Parts: sequence; structure tokens; C-alpha cells
Amino acid sequence: MLPVIGWLHHATTMLARTLIERKRDGGKITPTEWRQLMQGYAADDVPDYQMSALAMAIFFQGLDRDEIGALTSAMMASGASLDLTHLAAQRVDKHSTGGVGDKVSLILAPLVACLGVAVPMMSGRGLGHTGGTLDKLESIPGFRTDLSLAEATRQLEQLGCALIGQTREIAPADRKLYALRDATATVESIPLISASIMSKKLAEGLTGLVLDIKRGSGAFIPELDQGLALARTMIDLGADHGCPVIALITAMDRPLGRACGNALEVEEAIMALRGEGPADLMKVTYALGAEMLLLGGVVADRDEARRRMEVAMSSGKAAAKFQQIIEAQGGDPRVLDDPSLLPQAAACELFLAPRDGVVAAVEPKAIGRGITSLGGGRTRVDDVVDPSVGYVITAKPGDIVRVGEPLATIFARDQDGVAIGMAVLAASIRVADDAEPPLPLISHRVTESGVERWEE
Amino acid sequence: MLPVIGWLHHATTMLARTLIERKRDGGKITPTEWRQLMQGYAADDVPDYQMSALAMAIFFQGLDRDEIGALTSAMMASGASLDLTHLAAQRVDKHSTGGVGDKVSLILAPLVACLGVAVPMMSGRGLGHTGGTLDKLESIPGFRTDLSLAEATRQLEQLGCALIGQTREIAPADRKLYALRDATATVESIPLISASIMSKKLAEGLTGLVLDIKRGSGAFIPELDQGLALARTMIDLGADHGCPVIALITAMDRPLGRACGNALEVEEAIMALRGEGPADLMKVTYALGAEMLLLGGVVADRDEARRRMEVAMSSGKAAAKFQQIIEAQGGDPRVLDDPSLLPQAAACELFLAPRDGVVAAVEPKAIGRGITSLGGGRTRVDDVVDPSVGYVITAKPGDIVRVGEPLATIFARDQDGVAIGMAVLAASIRVADDAEPPLPLISHRVTESGVERWEE
Repeated sequence: MLPVIGWLHHATTMLARTLIERKRDGGKITPTEWRQLMQGYAADDVPDYQMSALAMAIFFQGLDRDEIGALTSAMMASGASLDLTHLAAQRVDKHSTGGVGDKVSLILAPLVACLGVAVPMMSGRGLGHTGGTLDKLESIPGFRTDLSLAEATRQLEQLGCALIGQTREIAPADRKLYALRDATATVESIPLISASIMSKKLAEGLTGLVLDIKRGSGAFIPELDQGLALARTMIDLGADHGCPVIALITAMDRPLGRACGNALEVEEAIMALRGEGPADLMKVTYALGAEMLLLGGVVADRDEARRRMEVAMSSGKAAAKFQQIIEAQGGDPRVLDDPSLLPQAAACELFLAPRDGVVAAVEPKAIGRGITSLGGGRTRVDDVVDPSVGYVITAKPGDIVRVGEPLATIFARDQDGVAIGMAVLAASIRVADDAEPPLPLISHRVTESGVERWEE
Repeated sequence: MLPVIGWLHHATTMLARTLIERKRDGGKITPTEWRQLMQGYAADDVPDYQMSALAMAIFFQGLDRDEIGALTSAMMASGASLDLTHLAAQRVDKHSTGGVGDKVSLILAPLVACLGVAVPMMSGRGLGHTGGTLDKLESIPGFRTDLSLAEATRQLEQLGCALIGQTREIAPADRKLYALRDATATVESIPLISASIMSKKLAEGLTGLVLDIKRGSGAFIPELDQGLALARTMIDLGADHGCPVIALITAMDRPLGRACGNALEVEEAIMALRGEGPADLMKVTYALGAEMLLLGGVVADRDEARRRMEVAMSSGKAAAKFQQIIEAQGGDPRVLDDPSLLPQAAACELFLAPRDGVVAAVEPKAIGRGITSLGGGRTRVDDVVDPSVGYVITAKPGDIVRVGEPLATIFARDQDGVAIGMAVLAASIRVADDAEPPLPLISHRVTESGVERWEE
């Protein structure tokens, strides 16, 4: 019953044991050691049981700036990278810490790409209450996210944008560690979160990264101070690797936009690309987009960025770019003109205000889990997702409503699903006599020079 | 590359994840949860990578008295136990935290058993710099330590003593966890150490346990305060499980006795059973033996215990008991009368004092590792041990010596081994102008009522 330690792996497991002990006691791991460790882990020479013990030691003891940088490099070096240095355009991506109704990536990628910044966007799948961009994209009939690095490179050369998942080639040590952390309660560590994000982003060959760090009850990291700490760590990490990072702190105490559910969110993103998105979604999209365009060096200031984005929307240029990307990745490009080609739920039903009052809360966590209850999310990585189901919630916190007024629509597979959705919304949307003000939609901008409060 | 989570194991791994997170955040695990967890671990339903993360969380957050008790019960319940309740005699064992030259178990088991206390002694193998009683016993030609529980029970009925290893039947969850902790730098946790020791001891069906907690540079836990903390934890744990525990704190800043090496130590133990052991070894043996006889209820006080032990030695009764045990366990009983039947090293050489002075140190860790350098110890669990090699060190810290005076003898396989041994001893035995006084051989006695300083 002893853990199997073969002769070949002996030196690596001994090294791992030494490094676990050192980190446990508050010591520092050198760049060379990180590289040996992560190469060994990617090659299955360092067993999961050592890596999880190390992750827990890191949870308690942290990593300093040098170590985070070295771990990031080591994870990136465990696999292949996109080499995009031959592109004329700067390469900028956006990464969100995840939320409910957050379809910003679907809008931003074509919008920014059509304005001359290359967007090699690598996204994840939904897990738990948060949705994933890959799942949303795959609700488009035929859409492939599993491009090879060669395919992604070619598409970036031709269209300036590729929307892909983390392939087996990219940062395999991070892939393994990410799954392991989920099973061992070692996800909530800012050094590990930062290294995981950045190892993938650096493998995309980025010259800039914009972070959307969510705060509030539906965020992965609800507390502002923790979100700011993550922002600062990521900014330092980017600076040390020649990839400038800028972060906005945005609200996730309610869903972003109206649509919550894979195909429903694609539809809302298509509307947004025509300039017809809901106000909160557009505001966050333009704010993040301006940062991407600034990092990409194609605009002089935020006002110019805003004007150019609005023109790209109203002219149909942004929508056309999305259509080209969909076509290039095997999807049905007609969805841009006819969103009814997206998977449609069989059963729909309005959810009505149960009383007069003010909307006091639209709980994103409950909504997110409520998508999974309809079959549209995952509790486990191998669950199959029904893209058609979800909610469109028009009510926002602070809205004055009258009894019987429609607040949302449920999209379900059948009447049983509708009943489940009714219960979900009844528990998620609270109408009361009065309400606390919600969090500011965008509250802070964090750069290398520090934290600024966001001014409208 | 995701950790494999099959459907059948899903509930158990989800439970494990929840418990890791709770412990990580300083929460408490209930007795039912400990039982599910350790049963799941013994059945390979809870993977090593979760258990190592939990062990690291325990390293940082600790376990309270209830949790240590529940973990101990859960590990014991993961396997079988000796049922010795039908024996008239009390069952008392001695456990040492391990050291160099510590052959006390070999003497104590027959000595105490021949005075009417049953001794179901379960021992371990050497690893790192410390020796193991099983390795020592197996240097006796033919000696088997792998008795089944049925065989051990029968021998305890007949001889009042069995000297065995941890079988596959006993506390399998502890077996797995012990090996895992070694590979993941989670050994040094008093709650985990205590639960590991006690789960095995309770499975022996004990009614009392005497602990020899070593302190000093060669001890597993060098610091006195940590040793006392372990003593107190073990005493509480025993009290909660109806097994009174008494602990002595003894010195391991130098080897105990003279012989260091498996067969050499058996020979010294045989001499000691004839009353001819070195003074320090006899003192520790009598002190621990008196506690065992008191716990076993066969003597009224320590003076009576001491008298009866001396008679058992001088009458040959103790040696005869060891002879019976050796014979019952397949060993050659003639070694008692003729220790030259033990494996003999081919090459011997005296180590001489390099100068006039006082012996300032005999470093047990260096000596222990120096046995391994001769082929007599393990750096890995599957190493094969040469029982014949080692050192007999007659010099003790504080001795005044003259240049050229013999301080020790090296027992090696060949002249190369002798050369290695010379270097080991030159680095381990320090002769200087003056010396700090060594630690008191026995310094404290710890019982439920508290810590007493040991008086000669």
C-alpha cells in the first residue's frame, strides 16, 4: 500500500518532498527547482499526492513575487506556446474571474479584433455556478473550440482573432494542477490563481492583458480587498514577464446583462454587437474594450476608443468579424442574422413579480446554480450541457415593480423544468419594501501605478 | 489529465473535498466523518492526493482532542484488532519515538512478560537514521516477525509475548497514511503522530502503554517542549480510549548503550538479559520496565519492580523467555547461549582517539546514517539491510580519553566498509578540550497528573 516510488522517479519525488517541506516551513523555491518540479509533474514523475500537499502548503505560506513568476514560467514551459511575434498587431486578451451572465468575451473578441488588435482568446468551461465561454460558443451549431496551435495561429494571421480552449499542448502542468486543486480545496490561493491564469496567457503570446475581476456575492473572490490583491499580483507578474496587465473591478452581486444560459447569452452578445445590448453589459464591454485598445496601441485615449467601438458596432463591422470567426471555426455563420438558429428551449414561461415593491436582490449564485438545475451547467467536469436552457432576467436591483409585472423568462426543456425554474427565480429574485444600493458596476481600475476609483 | 473521479467514488471524494476545505479553514471534523473518510481511504475510494492535502491542512490547523480520538478510532476500525480480553494478564506495550542504539524493546519484552504482564509488541522497521526493532529481530537466523493475528494471539496465550510487525490486517488506513506522510513532508504533526501510534497500539488490545520519548539531536522530535506536547497528547488519547499511558523523556543526544547496528544490538540485548548490559542501557530499561510492571498491576511500587527485574535477569528467567519467544517465532534459540551464531561482519577495526581530551559528542544522527553507509540501514523502504554491520562505541560524552585509546569498533563487510566507518566515526565522535554536559539520561516522567522531573 506504499505509494509507488520507482527507481526512475526517485530523484524527482525526493526533490518534491524536500520542496514541500521547505515551503511548509516558509522557505523559498528557486526558479530551477520550480522548473524541475513542474516538468516532473507534467511528465507524471511527481505524483498528484505530492503536488496537492505542496498546493496546501502554498495556501498557508504563500509565494513571493519571484516564486510566482518562476512557477508561471515553469508551467508555461511545461508545454507549447503560440508564437505570434510575426504579427504586425499587438496581441491583447481579456480574462474574467467568472460570473453569471458574463458574455463580454463573445462581444469583445470580435469588436477589438476588427479595430486592429489581435485577440488570441483562450477560455474555459463553466463549473459550479459560473458559466464558461467555451460552452457558450459551442451552443452555436458546428462551432469548434478545439483548434490546434497551428490552426489558431493561421486564423490569427487571417482574422486577428481565435476563440479556443486550453489545448493539451498548452501548459499541461497547469491543466493537471488546476483539476487537482479543485479536488483538494486549494483553489483559493492568490499565488496559485495568478500563476495559473498567467501561464496560459503567456502561452498565447500576449503583449497585454486586461483583467475583469468580479466582486460581490456571485464572484469567485467576493471581497474587494482580495480582488485588489489578485489584481496587484497579476500586474506584477505581467510586468515581470513583459506583458502589461490592467484590471477593472466590476460588480457580480447581480448577473451581468439579462441573459443567463449558453445559447441565450450568445443571442444577447449578437444583439450587443449590433449596439442593442443592455446598458450594464455595454458599459462593462466598452470599459474593458477601451483598455484592450489602449494596450494594443491603436487608440490615443479612452474617448477615441469609445468612439471607434461605437462605430464598429453601428457599421456592422464588429458583427461581421464575429461572423467570420464563427465560419472559420466551423460554426453556422447565419446565427448572426437569425439567432433563432441557436438551440431553442421547448418550454418558456414568464416569471411575474409576486408583490409591489423594489427589487432588492437578483442573486447570481442562485441563478447560476439554477441554470445547472435546468441541465444547462455542470456540477462535474464530464457533465453534458443543454445549451438551450436558462433565464432572461429583465429586472435589476433597485427597479420599482408592480405585482404581476414580468421580471424574467424561464427557458426550459419541458414543464418540469419550468417548475424548477419558477422555484429558482422565486428564491433568487427578492422584491421588498426597500433595497440596499447595489455595488457600483465598475468600481476600481488597477494599474502598475496603483488603484484608482472608477469615475463615470 | 483530470484526476479520475468515478461515479462510485464520487460521494466519498466530494466528502473528502468538503472536509479538506473545512480543516483548512480551522473547522472540526466529526467522528462519523472521520470514519467515512478513513474507511474510504483504506478502500482506495479516497485518493492519496486528497489525503495528503488534508494531512498538510492538519499540519497547519491541528486537531483537537476529540478529533485526534475520532481519527485514532477510525484508523483502528479500518482493520482488525487482537482480541486479548480472555487473557488473565494485563497487556502492556512500550513504544519509543526512535533513536540510535535503542535495543530496549528486545530486553523489555521478555523481561516484563516473564514477570506476568502480557506484551503484544508491534514494532516497525528502521528508516532514515533510526533503527527498527523488526530489523534487529530479523538478524536472528530464521526469526519471523510476520505472524498472523491468530498466531500472535496463540503465542500471547502460551508465552505472554509476541514480537510482530504491523500486519496488513492492522489499521490499514494508518499504514497508507504513514507512507503518504513520509512522501509529503507531513510527518511532523503531533496529532497525526499520536493517532498513528495509538491506532496500532489500541489494535493490539492494550490495557496500558509506556512511551519512551527521545529528546536531543538524534531524536525524531529534538525539542523538549515538543516531546512533552506529544506525551500529553498521547496520555489524553489513551485516557479517552481506556488505555492508560505513561511517558518518560530520555536522552538521544548520544546513542543508547554501545552497540549500533542490527545483529550487534541483539548481542548487546542478550548480554543485558544476563544483567551484563552497559549502565545507561540498563537504567533506561529498568525505568521503562518498572512503569510497565506498575501499569500491569503486578508490583506495588518501583522498588519492588526493580528487585523483581534484577532477579529475573540474574536467575536467567528473562533470557529463557527471550529464548522461548525466538524459538516460537522460528528463530535459532541457540543465539542466547552463543551470540556468535548471529551474522558476523567480515572486517573489524578499532577506532582510536585522535588526541588527548574529553569526548565532547557522539552524534547519534551521524552514527545512524553511518550504519546505512555500511549497508545496515535503509534510505528507502525497499532497501535490503545487512544485519552484520555497525559500530560498538564504548566512548561516552564526558569521558576523558588519551590519544590512541580505542573509542569504538567498526564492523563492516570489507576493508572499503572499514574506511567508510572510519570516516563516519571521525565525523561523529568529537574529542575536545572540554565538553558541555550531556542531557540527563532520563529527565521527565509524564502522567495524567502532570510532568514530574525525574529523580535518581
